[in-house]
Amino acid sequence: MTVSFKNGKASRRQFLTGAAAAGAGTVAASVAKAAGDPLITEKQVWAQATGDGVDATPYGLPIEFESDVVRRNVEWLTADTISSINFTPIHALDGTITPQGCAFERHHSGAIEMRKEDYRLMINGLVDTPLVFTYEDLERFPRENHVYFCECAANTGMEWAGAQLNGAQFTHGMIHNMEYTGVPLRTLLNEAGIQTEGKWVYVEGADASSNGRSIPLEKALDDVLVAFKANGEALRKEHGYPVRLVVPGWEGNMWVKWLRRIEVTNQAVESREETSKYTDTLADGTSRKWTWVMDAKSVVTSPSPQAPIKHGKGPLVITGLAWSGRGAITRVDVSIDGGKNWQEARLGAPGSKGAMSRFYLDINWDGQEMFLQSRAHDDTGYVQPTKTQLRDVRGLNSIYHNNCIQTWWVRSNGEAENVEIS
Amino acid sequence: MTVSFKNGKASRRQFLTGAAAAGAGTVAASVAKAAGDPLITEKQVWAQATGDGVDATPYGLPIEFESDVVRRNVEWLTADTISSINFTPIHALDGTITPQGCAFERHHSGAIEMRKEDYRLMINGLVDTPLVFTYEDLERFPRENHVYFCECAANTGMEWAGAQLNGAQFTHGMIHNMEYTGVPLRTLLNEAGIQTEGKWVYVEGADASSNGRSIPLEKALDDVLVAFKANGEALRKEHGYPVRLVVPGWEGNMWVKWLRRIEVTNQAVESREETSKYTDTLADGTSRKWTWVMDAKSVVTSPSPQAPIKHGKGPLVITGLAWSGRGAITRVDVSIDGGKNWQEARLGAPGSKGAMSRFYLDINWDGQEMFLQSRAHDDTGYVQPTKTQLRDVRGLNSIYHNNCIQTWWVRSNGEAENVEIS
Repeated sequence: MTVSFKNGKASRRQFLTGAAAAGAGTVAASVAKAAGDPLITEKQVWAQATGDGVDATPYGLPIEFESDVVRRNVEWLTADTISSINFTPIHALDGTITPQGCAFERHHSGAIEMRKEDYRLMINGLVDTPLVFTYEDLERFPRENHVYFCECAANTGMEWAGAQLNGAQFTHGMIHNMEYTGVPLRTLLNEAGIQTEGKWVYVEGADASSNGRSIPLEKALDDVLVAFKANGEALRKEHGYPVRLVVPGWEGNMWVKWLRRIEVTNQAVESREETSKYTDTLADGTSRKWTWVMDAKSVVTSPSPQAPIKHGKGPLVITGLAWSGRGAITRVDVSIDGGKNWQEARLGAPGSKGAMSRFYLDINWDGQEMFLQSRAHDDTGYVQPTKTQLRDVRGLNSIYHNNCIQTWWVRSNGEAENVEIS
Repeated sequence: MTVSFKNGKASRRQFLTGAAAAGAGTVAASVAKAAGDPLITEKQVWAQATGDGVDATPYGLPIEFESDVVRRNVEWLTADTISSINFTPIHALDGTITPQGCAFERHHSGAIEMRKEDYRLMINGLVDTPLVFTYEDLERFPRENHVYFCECAANTGMEWAGAQLNGAQFTHGMIHNMEYTGVPLRTLLNEAGIQTEGKWVYVEGADASSNGRSIPLEKALDDVLVAFKANGEALRKEHGYPVRLVVPGWEGNMWVKWLRRIEVTNQAVESREETSKYTDTLADGTSRKWTWVMDAKSVVTSPSPQAPIKHGKGPLVITGLAWSGRGAITRVDVSIDGGKNWQEARLGAPGSKGAMSRFYLDINWDGQEMFLQSRAHDDTGYVQPTKTQLRDVRGLNSIYHNNCIQTWWVRSNGEAENVEIS
């Protein structure tokens, strides 16, 4: 595949002087040109008082014109609504916080409903005093606030076999990034008193699947949270109301929802969810297990198949998300020619451990086709691999932990498509 | 008023060893004690698969059990729903991010509905080239992400006259804190080219009130954003969809919604909204004007009148919010005896300029009445004043800019009330 593309990053000065715009078609219209625009010259219906206050909507919903910014399922991926995956519309969002309303969720046996009053959390196993906490009990322990991403191990999983799903929402939307409030798990474990033989915790939820997972005690005592708020308010039902586990940097299925029980054990339980699922089958048929950490990864969210360029050539904002389960994002590179040349993108804010970063590359698009890629770096020195590099190591049998560089083919008409290049 | 109260901050070690809990009544029940609890011993209805996936709710709403966590109005404050104030339920939130759905909003002539396609922003006045931007045009300029609080100048305004409104939602809820994505206003102004005589901008919205306000050019070129996303997604209708102004640290009425026009002028316009309103009448009848910046302020959100203590004595989390329009919050002190003694609270994260901070003080409550106060410090060295100090300087005629220390009288039964002490 040969890509001929000449482009340059529009400098700040170009934007400030309007030179970029002038060179490639003006971004804004002059007032003289806009003189006949009835949206300016005529009085609009909204320029009169309306009785439509917020009293009718104590909890405000997105405006009707944004009805496409919603979670979506891929029907052929899940056979029923009991076990479903709902993808975040990352192609339509900006910044780093994911609103709960459209934050991805995956459950194994339904999104259950439980009152706070009915909530119980048991800590048992190798502890001095097995304990049962009510929701009100949890509210009495010192709390912390942290912004963390939660990514499903299967995010981008369909792409092992080729470029299959045509949109960032579907290739990379099994992720969200929220500000959690909760009690450190170590506080509760220490309240019960961990016996010296205790080396693991086994965590399970109150839903039918129970979704039991083993977590090494070292992690459990490090940064795991027993969380009851996300982005300031109570968890949504589908995110585990009233209490879920937050396991920073580790795969989403360990973030057990409707958290019911934590058993301190001397070894891993090797449950269904960590043997038949959530292991990575290699080329020789053996499986990697305990692949908990989500490696550094990134994706361009716009332009992308669901977010084509509609304005033609000239100034263009390329933007996307980057994250790493091992640390903070330190840098993101963007290529418009399929990885031949890279430009360092601008981060919206300094990277933070376990949290998503937003990146931007502001270019002056010449209207020629692009093969858009992004490449994340984290503070351990890890660099996001290409699809070829990843397949060389892991083969083609995997479902989980695909963190390869994604390519969008952007045509000169601005439409984009999921492609592979090699 | 004499307050006799002996209390100590529960140390980390006390919590970790359970000593705090043991000394004041156990927080969690032992498994032995909980043996008869049917919520543990019986199979629950939610422990069976449910078909209630998220496919039916592409945009997830709060669970029905949280229906009290909503915006509320104070009927006697506003006569109709055209001009309304809807207060954030800060007493029920945690962390720092305010979800858009329950984020306060105030409008002067209705929350209008406008399609992105119908959006126009004009920059005119003392510029080289008057320009008109469409929504799509704005999306082509380099964007920034920042978390900022937006506080109404009248927040806490009813408290000038005494302790009037019984709840943090009503005394301090005209505020929210969100992650904004937008284009710096200076980028757009420079695109039009500011003439040397230009010293101010006059900004107005597309609603009937137009809510015009004058902003000094120095601020307009500093950190003001033309924003189109909050917490990642499009603005809610009532927050100015599709585009609002973000004026960090300055009073909320300058954050013009449904932003329509920005005129560069050589002097302030002295509009209705900055003369008949939003000036501060002093004791001698003269008025302070151009009181744009919101001074450092804080409030305990829990316990508070709407969030009483239900669990009795023992470990108690005291939490609240602090913010400053002049810089970052560096410290918050909490008093449980009406300001006689102060303890430094723990910040949930280091303070950030123009953004809210969450604070916590973890105590072992002895069950005696408390007079709860919080006191914010910012990085300019400013310290939040008492009500008496504020009245000494500003008199009793003001409506706006009341940033005094708030007092909640917490009775031994855990109920709390808005009181004044002197």
